[in-house]
This record gives sequence, C-alpha cells and structure tokens, in this order.
Amino acid sequence: MKNDLALIGLGVMGSNLALNIADHGYKIAVYNYTQDLVDKFKNENSHPNAEPFYDLDKMMASLKAPRIIIIMVTAGKAVDSVIEALKPYLAQGDIVLDLGNSNFNDTNRRFRELQNLGVVFSGVGVSGGSEGARHGPAIMVGGTKEAYDKFGTILEDISAHAYDGKPCCAFMGNGAAGHYVKMVHNGIEYADMQLIAESYLVLKTLGGFSNEELAQIFESYAKGPLESYLIKITAKVLKEKDPKGQGNLIDYIVDKAGQKGTGKWTCQAGFEVGVDLSMIDAACNARFISGSLKERTLRSKECKAQSVESLSSKEALIKKVENYLYVGKIAAYAQGFDLYAKASKLYDFDLNLGKIAEIFRAGCIIQAKFLNDITKAYERNPTLSNLIDDPFFKEKLELCLDDAREISILAMKNALPTPVMYEALAYIDGMRCSCVGANLIQGLRDYFGAHTFERIDEEGFRHHNWSN
Amino acid sequence: MKNDLALIGLGVMGSNLALNIADHGYKIAVYNYTQDLVDKFKNENSHPNAEPFYDLDKMMASLKAPRIIIIMVTAGKAVDSVIEALKPYLAQGDIVLDLGNSNFNDTNRRFRELQNLGVVFSGVGVSGGSEGARHGPAIMVGGTKEAYDKFGTILEDISAHAYDGKPCCAFMGNGAAGHYVKMVHNGIEYADMQLIAESYLVLKTLGGFSNEELAQIFESYAKGPLESYLIKITAKVLKEKDPKGQGNLIDYIVDKAGQKGTGKWTCQAGFEVGVDLSMIDAACNARFISGSLKERTLRSKECKAQSVESLSSKEALIKKVENYLYVGKIAAYAQGFDLYAKASKLYDFDLNLGKIAEIFRAGCIIQAKFLNDITKAYERNPTLSNLIDDPFFKEKLELCLDDAREISILAMKNALPTPVMYEALAYIDGMRCSCVGANLIQGLRDYFGAHTFERIDEEGFRHHNWSN
Repeated sequence: MKNDLALIGLGVMGSNLALNIADHGYKIAVYNYTQDLVDKFKNENSHPNAEPFYDLDKMMASLKAPRIIIIMVTAGKAVDSVIEALKPYLAQGDIVLDLGNSNFNDTNRRFRELQNLGVVFSGVGVSGGSEGARHGPAIMVGGTKEAYDKFGTILEDISAHAYDGKPCCAFMGNGAAGHYVKMVHNGIEYADMQLIAESYLVLKTLGGFSNEELAQIFESYAKGPLESYLIKITAKVLKEKDPKGQGNLIDYIVDKAGQKGTGKWTCQAGFEVGVDLSMIDAACNARFISGSLKERTLRSKECKAQSVESLSSKEALIKKVENYLYVGKIAAYAQGFDLYAKASKLYDFDLNLGKIAEIFRAGCIIQAKFLNDITKAYERNPTLSNLIDDPFFKEKLELCLDDAREISILAMKNALPTPVMYEALAYIDGMRCSCVGANLIQGLRDYFGAHTFERIDEEGFRHHNWSN
Repeated sequence: MKNDLALIGLGVMGSNLALNIADHGYKIAVYNYTQDLVDKFKNENSHPNAEPFYDLDKMMASLKAPRIIIIMVTAGKAVDSVIEALKPYLAQGDIVLDLGNSNFNDTNRRFRELQNLGVVFSGVGVSGGSEGARHGPAIMVGGTKEAYDKFGTILEDISAHAYDGKPCCAFMGNGAAGHYVKMVHNGIEYADMQLIAESYLVLKTLGGFSNEELAQIFESYAKGPLESYLIKITAKVLKEKDPKGQGNLIDYIVDKAGQKGTGKWTCQAGFEVGVDLSMIDAACNARFISGSLKERTLRSKECKAQSVESLSSKEALIKKVENYLYVGKIAAYAQGFDLYAKASKLYDFDLNLGKIAEIFRAGCIIQAKFLNDITKAYERNPTLSNLIDDPFFKEKLELCLDDAREISILAMKNALPTPVMYEALAYIDGMRCSCVGANLIQGLRDYFGAHTFERIDEEGFRHHNWSN
C-alpha cells in the first residue's frame, strides 16, 4: 500500500507534524537528510501510519501520485537544497509544501521555479509551536487553490478547531500568500507581547505589585475581553517558582529579548507596501534596545532618579491598565490587518481578512476571543477600510481611550519606556485628526527639492516659486 | 585637448553638477540619452568648459585616460542601462561614478560587476537639492580609496565648504558606503522634518499662534542651538504669502506628505542591521498616515471633541518647545549614528562617524550647527557607543528633558499625534533603564516556543520545563 504523502525534516516540528498527520489516519513517509533523526524518530515515535526512510529514492517510490511532499527544515538555504534534491523525482502535478517560516520573497521565487516543472510549490504558514504541531496548529496555505483542493483536507484535519468546530486552516491566496499571512501574524505577535511587557512594567513599577499579584491580575484579564493564549501564559510565567531556589523565575530571567526574523520582515514589508506599522516597528525596536542591557544599566545609575508618581487606587490602576492593553490591541490589529488589505492588492493575494481572523481563533500564538470580534467586523463590512471604523471597535475605543491615555501619560511622567503604547495613541490620534502637520513637510520638500505639493483649492501637484 | 571627465544625464541635477564642475576649471563632456536635454543644455547652459555630445562614442573618445564618467540619472533600471551602454567602452582603470540616490544593494551589485572588468564603480551620495548641485552640495563617496585619490579633488572642489574651510566631501568607505551614508542622511532628514512638523502642531494648536508668530518663533530657534537649514526654511515657508490671494500659503497646502524611497530604505536597513531607529520609522509611518486625509477628516468629525489644555504662558511654551525639539534632535541623531556604527561593522565600511558629521555641516539638507557638536563628540571619543553618552549631549539632555517630557505629555493629553517625539522619549528612557520588561518576553517565548533564555546568575541559554 502506497503512502499518502511524505515529510522531509525530522526535527521537533517535523516529527510532531508527522505524528499529528499519522494520528489522523493518513499514511506518511518520513525522511531526514541525516540518519540520526530518522533513528530517533524510529526509536521514540514509532507509529503504524508513519514509515521512516533512510533513502530519498525509496521514500519517493513509496508515494501515491500525484506526490505530496512536506518540507519542514530550517528556513533559508536548507529549503533550496531539499528542493534541488527533489527535482529529479518530481513530475507534472506533484505538490511540494514548505511548512517552515520561509521569507515570502523566497517562496515566490520557488513557486515560479517549480511552476516551470509543472509542480505546485505551496508556502504554508504554521503557528502554534511544537505543541501546536503535535495537537493542532493554525495553518495558512498559499500556492494555488487547485492544488489546495488536493491536500487541503489533510491540513484541515490536523489543524486546531475553533469553538464552533471550524478548522483553523484555509487557503489564503496565491503564491506566497500563506507565508505572508504567517509573517504578519508573527509581527502582530511581537506587538501583542510588547504590549504585555509594557503593562507589566507599568503595573510592577507604578502599582508596586508582587509577582503573585501580577499573575492574579493577568488571570483576571484572561477572563475579560483580553482573553487570549498570551495573557493566560503571562500569568503562568509570572507565578512560576524559580527551580534553583527562592522567589519567582521571572526575576532571574535576563532582561534581553531575542528574535528570529519574522518580526523584522513584517516591519520591512510594511515599509515596502507603505502601511503604518508603528507598533510592530516599535516592538521590534524595543527588542533591539533590550540587547544593550549593560549600557542601559550603567546609564540608569548615572541619571537622576525619577520619583514614582502613581495612581491613588490600585484597583483603578488594574482596571485602567486592562483598558490600556485593550486599546493597544485594537490599534496593533488595525495596523496588521491594514497591511493584509494593502499587500493583498499590491501582490494580488486576494486575501479574505475575516477568514484570516477566523483561522487565528485557535491553534496559533495570538489566538484570542478578540479575533471573533474582528471576524464579525469583516462580516459586517468586507471592505472595511480600518478596524477602528467598525462600530464595535469604535465604541470600545470611546470607552477605553481615556484610560489608555491616562496610563500612557503616567508612564511618560515616570520615564517608563512604553514605546508601543505611545505609538498606539499616536496612531489612533493621527487616524482621527484632520491636520497632522504634513502640509509643513510638503512646503519644506518643495522649498528645498521642488518636490511639488497639492493645494486644497485646486487639482494637481505644482511647484511654488518661493519668494526668499 | 581632451576632457577631464564626462557626465551622463542632463536633468536639472545633472546639468547643475556639470556647470558646477565646469566653473571649477575642469573640462567636462556632457551627454544625454535623449537629444532634447542635450539641446536644452546647449541653449540654456552654454559653458566654455562643458562640451555637449549627442553621441556616446564621440563623448567617450573625448576623454583622458583613465576615463572618469559620472552617471546622474534616475535611480533604478536607468543606471543599469547606462552601465550596459558604457561597458563596450570601458577599460581597466576607468572609473564610473553614480551620483544618483541608488539603493545601496544595487550599488554593491554594480561595484562587483564592474570590478570584474577592472573598472571601479563608486556610488556617490549627493545632498543639497538642485541648488546644492549648482553651488556646492555635500558629497559622500564610496568605491575604493585608490580610485578616490584619482577624482576626489574634483568633487571636493565642487562641494560645499564649512565655516572652517573644510570641504563637505570625503571618501566614506568601500563599495556602497557612499550611498549608504546618504541613505541614512535622508532617514535622519525625515525625523528632523517630522520633529519640526510636530512642534508646529503643538505651537499652533496649544499656543494658538498665527503663521507670522510661528515664523518668528522658528526664526528665534534658528539663532540658538537648533540653528540649521531646515529650521531657517521652516520660518520662510510659514511666512510665505499665498500667491493666489489672501493669507499664507501654508494654509492652502494639502496635509499629505509624499516620499521618494530613501526614508523607507533607511528603516528597512535599520531592521536588517538590528538597530533601533524608532524615530525614523515613526517619521516614515507618519507620512503614510498623512496619505489617508479623507478618512482622517471624516473620523475627526465623528469622535468627541478634545478640550485644549495649554500652558499658561506663551513665552514658556516657546522655550519649552525649543528644548523639546532639541531633545528630539539628539535622540534622532543618536539613532542614525548608531546605525552608521553598526552597519560599518556588519558591512566592513570602516566609517568614520566624526567625519560623517563634519561633511554634513554644510551643503546638505540637514546642515546644522548641531553637527559640529557631533563631530566634537567623536573627536573626544572615536569609539563612543551612543551620542547620549557624550558629556556635552548628556548635559543637554539633563537640561532639556523635563521640558520635552512636559510638552509630550501636553500633546498626548490633547490628542495631538506626535509619534516621533513620543519615540524620542521612549528611546531615551529605554536606553537609561535597567529593566524594560524583556525578561517577561523571554519567559513567554520560552513557554510557547522553547526559545530558551539566559539567567542573571548563570552563563548560557537554557530552556525551562514550565510547571503548568
């Protein structure tokens, strides 16, 4: 009996995906370039539906036609190497799926390259970490709709399912659309996490709460409109005891954040398309700054001490920070979804924004109750120009904005670095303001570079002969 | 008698550069692909030292060896076309200079391509607009030092000169270093201009000043530590009368800012290198947002009116906004120069940061008194890690930071979108703060993705087995 599909790359993600697929009754051939990971899979993950191979030739011969081959290796050159190795075997109609975090530009290039051989290359975004891969991730698929119809049910079966039973897997759009959607998902995740970090900083510094109290506060947030995976695990991270001794682990973790690429790619993509992603940018930048811990610490000792000015009531602070986080979340998703809308036009992805929010509802890192509200917003108005224009979010903003402003001002007064929340306010204020001072910028540009400008009372661009 | 060099591309910039070179006694051959601009040059710009050609063949034959050829065409494909057309003529030792705003990645590619033919391709950044090109721009040169020694004096002669007589032209570093330095110059210019726009917004909205008063305020700023070309022309733009009727032109310019590419390239480059350019990012994003004027205006009518809360004294406001602008300027240049430092290491440019500030002192758009202070800072300490660590700037920050904070808080209270100033404060506060909340981000990343973290009491990265 032939195998239904194959998977190449038996790291943690690849092994878990293979087992998830095998669990769903599909017969899967698995292979790894180095023998050790095939051995490991055999020893630790033996499964009646998963057949390990040490030989690519035999693995390919074991597959039904058209062949469906999943690549799950480190993004970058390794993907190209696997594709090169596969080429001699590939035939018209075969489908190659790249489930890694590949750069969408690479995916576009590979899509075209394999198109010439009659093979569909589909970039697939997978979110949910190794646990998600094993038990149900969110899956964002590119390539072609025609190819999706041949393998889509497999990925839908292994994906997470939302509370209404819908799979968190869908065809996003042509070519690199799947990887693009996943990239921006990660960018939004950066903003989400930095918003949580800034709230933590505010609560800890201005509220003087202990780690236990902070954990309780985030637990309470997880029961309200902020209900989400990240808020829930924030509470868990905050209350984790230090395994080496006393106190909580959080206080022993070095204050330097790492990153792996998709965040900065999202920022670069935003500038490419011309969309304001100020909050995702600020979140990436905050991680860069965090890296210079030694210099930061040295300077903190030298500059004059800031007296902490707090709110009189701790209860009020907790409630206001919840609203502050909520406003930040609305603005961050408004920016991310604005990129989806504009990139979709620019790259002909034909993205369905409501559908994207729908598949983010479970399985992925940014899964949240909030995403239901975004899906509904796009159901109400599929051509919604910005999330802040949806009646639901507009009302929420009216209710929460004063608190968000008050907490941001408090942070600013107390020299707490909360760049992403500042940008949330600047974004909302800018998007609701008829004069942002760009007229002066245009005047300056025309003065020094004859870049021309438009007049409010005439059509067209013209240069002014400045009188002095 | 043979020509000393040639220039291809007789648009405004090209013609002005050619005339500037001819004025300095060099014999220059000029050429344009389309005949019309050669005709125009002949008719309008006849010069004894400038010889127009309709034929590339003849133009190339008119040059001394080694040939020095300046390309001044629109960045992008046009540059490649000119290079292709030149290739049959080029010989070992010839030098091709690209004086356009080319992307540094293209410049690197062209540098390698011509290197194979024994030709030095040098990307040259030129700032100062068309007037600068005619009478003395700032010039940032890449390529190789060996080639620079053959043509550098020409460019130094035609460049602007600072008050101490030093030319605003220098060899910046290998390969694409010249275009890279120019690109970041433009990024800094974006931040500078947005800072001015935000100050304008604050003064106009919260101070209620008329255009004449605003012009006077910027004139007064131009006599203090903010003395610079951009502040001077801000005053001029603000007081310009509307040629079509009553009032000032500034009130008839549409509130939408354009851009041409170098700003967003700088932002993308910052993410590539991993440097916090939050202010330049925010300045680019502010231009994007300005584009949605229709939506902004619509929303401004719908959301509840903000009551304007101002400072009691107009005099105090003027002084405080000056300090606010000054703090913004320090932070913006700290970010830009941090990119120079880190990009220099990453790309082996071997940039001299003090030298960069020195050539920015005249000719270019961001020319300012302030740049003297930056040059001095790097003279005091060539390995200065960040401008805010220099004693001069540290003292200025101590003096001005409270005012900057007060004005930013006032802007935030009054819903004025001032994203770049917010990021200035977040940057300074973040750079002087020992805890930015990145420990929580690392905890979350390890929780959901086993990304590992460092402990404060141990060496190395490790994953924690989270208890629930």
